[in-house]
Amino acid sequence: MIGIFDSGVGGMTVAHAIEQLLPGHSLIYYGDIARTPYGPKSPATIINYSIRNTEFLLKRGAELIVIACNSASSVATETLRKKFQVPIIEVISPAAHRAAVTSKSGRVGIIGTRATVKSGIYPKTILTEQPRAKIFQEACPLLVPLVEEGWLNRRETKMILRRYLHPLKEKQIDTLVLGCTHYPLLKDLIQPRMGKQVKLIDSSIETAHYVKKFLTRTPDMVTREKQTSHNYYVSDSTETARKVAKRIFSRPMELICV
Amino acid sequence: MIGIFDSGVGGMTVAHAIEQLLPGHSLIYYGDIARTPYGPKSPATIINYSIRNTEFLLKRGAELIVIACNSASSVATETLRKKFQVPIIEVISPAAHRAAVTSKSGRVGIIGTRATVKSGIYPKTILTEQPRAKIFQEACPLLVPLVEEGWLNRRETKMILRRYLHPLKEKQIDTLVLGCTHYPLLKDLIQPRMGKQVKLIDSSIETAHYVKKFLTRTPDMVTREKQTSHNYYVSDSTETARKVAKRIFSRPMELICV
Repeated sequence: MIGIFDSGVGGMTVAHAIEQLLPGHSLIYYGDIARTPYGPKSPATIINYSIRNTEFLLKRGAELIVIACNSASSVATETLRKKFQVPIIEVISPAAHRAAVTSKSGRVGIIGTRATVKSGIYPKTILTEQPRAKIFQEACPLLVPLVEEGWLNRRETKMILRRYLHPLKEKQIDTLVLGCTHYPLLKDLIQPRMGKQVKLIDSSIETAHYVKKFLTRTPDMVTREKQTSHNYYVSDSTETARKVAKRIFSRPMELICV
Repeated sequence: MIGIFDSGVGGMTVAHAIEQLLPGHSLIYYGDIARTPYGPKSPATIINYSIRNTEFLLKRGAELIVIACNSASSVATETLRKKFQVPIIEVISPAAHRAAVTSKSGRVGIIGTRATVKSGIYPKTILTEQPRAKIFQEACPLLVPLVEEGWLNRRETKMILRRYLHPLKEKQIDTLVLGCTHYPLLKDLIQPRMGKQVKLIDSSIETAHYVKKFLTRTPDMVTREKQTSHNYYVSDSTETARKVAKRIFSRPMELICV
């Protein structure tokens, strides 16, 4: 069983992509809505929560953990890998790899939460693959609340995006990493703002592909059951969360509140 | 010692007002930054956190608890009063009372988080004092993130405020309750938007006055020490929190992370 956790519902973009790419696998998801968002919090706090989330998933039979949250991936991966025996897959490396092989000019932009940007993990990871790359980062802390409010096509959201993206446009990047699982929901605003010459890298989709590749290489890592199950657990149940979940999956979602 | 808790730093507007009105008293503050914000969360989760916050303050000697958070006051007051022996003061009643005695037309607006608005506690409280009042509520979930980002005078903030306040303006209210401890920081944008004929009620200031009145009536409730102390505890320490705290107190604040 594949275990996936996130600070809330944003990571469901990863779970949704995994459901589609690996229909033969069971998955269990944990969204820490009671403590969301992680992005503005300190590394120590995010690490504590990530340990708890992983323990929750392992107790319920997860054999592989996907950290479906860029903020948690940025600061907690190392600790989780030291502490737990199961494979830990995070969202940064797959997206960073895709950015490194996609960018022709080597000018790559990263947008993410404050925690992700501050960790410097994206530039570090991209530079190991493309040492001459120029990486430009922008923290976009208001995008998560805007997505959670469902303000996906509002004038205010466009203006705030313009403000965040302007410095990256100035730097003439040719590749932009959507370094937060909420951001794919804003793709239709981000792409025209950046121009079609800029390739957008969706960390959710890249991570799902990486999980698939990983399971193809090591098929025994995760048990395949005859009856697959997809269970979505959350630490708090709110209407907003159910709405965002429905938008991501294009179906009403049963969120089990624990 | 006066104990004050909030979901984060917003409640420091209450603590600041209490410091100024009651300079002879010690106070201890707890800001639950690790789980902030409370406003979008469910009543059950907010109640759990409020119990923990109260226990934290009581253990450190608080003799009186001020819930300096409208969301927690809205949904957790009853539970805390049942569970704990000390007096529990919340921010709703003082602000609701002020609104009821201030409004001439009886047309009162309330802005707050989703939790506060959904609880219906402001209309209920105002109507007990002014049964013929017409109360109009607007949940303004994006204002807390905007304040926390320090976007206090940005065009985007003004536009978002316009969108939230427009329905209340249409209703021709003469009194508007700022039903969230973050909102006083947006007073300078809200007043011109509503027009100077609309009286703004600041729940932080009203609550500080109420605490003062309460202690005048029952002076033995809280021990007066010769050496007063003001300690600000937080469950997470972030740069944003320190910035907002500094803005509220107009001085750098030592936040003790526990």
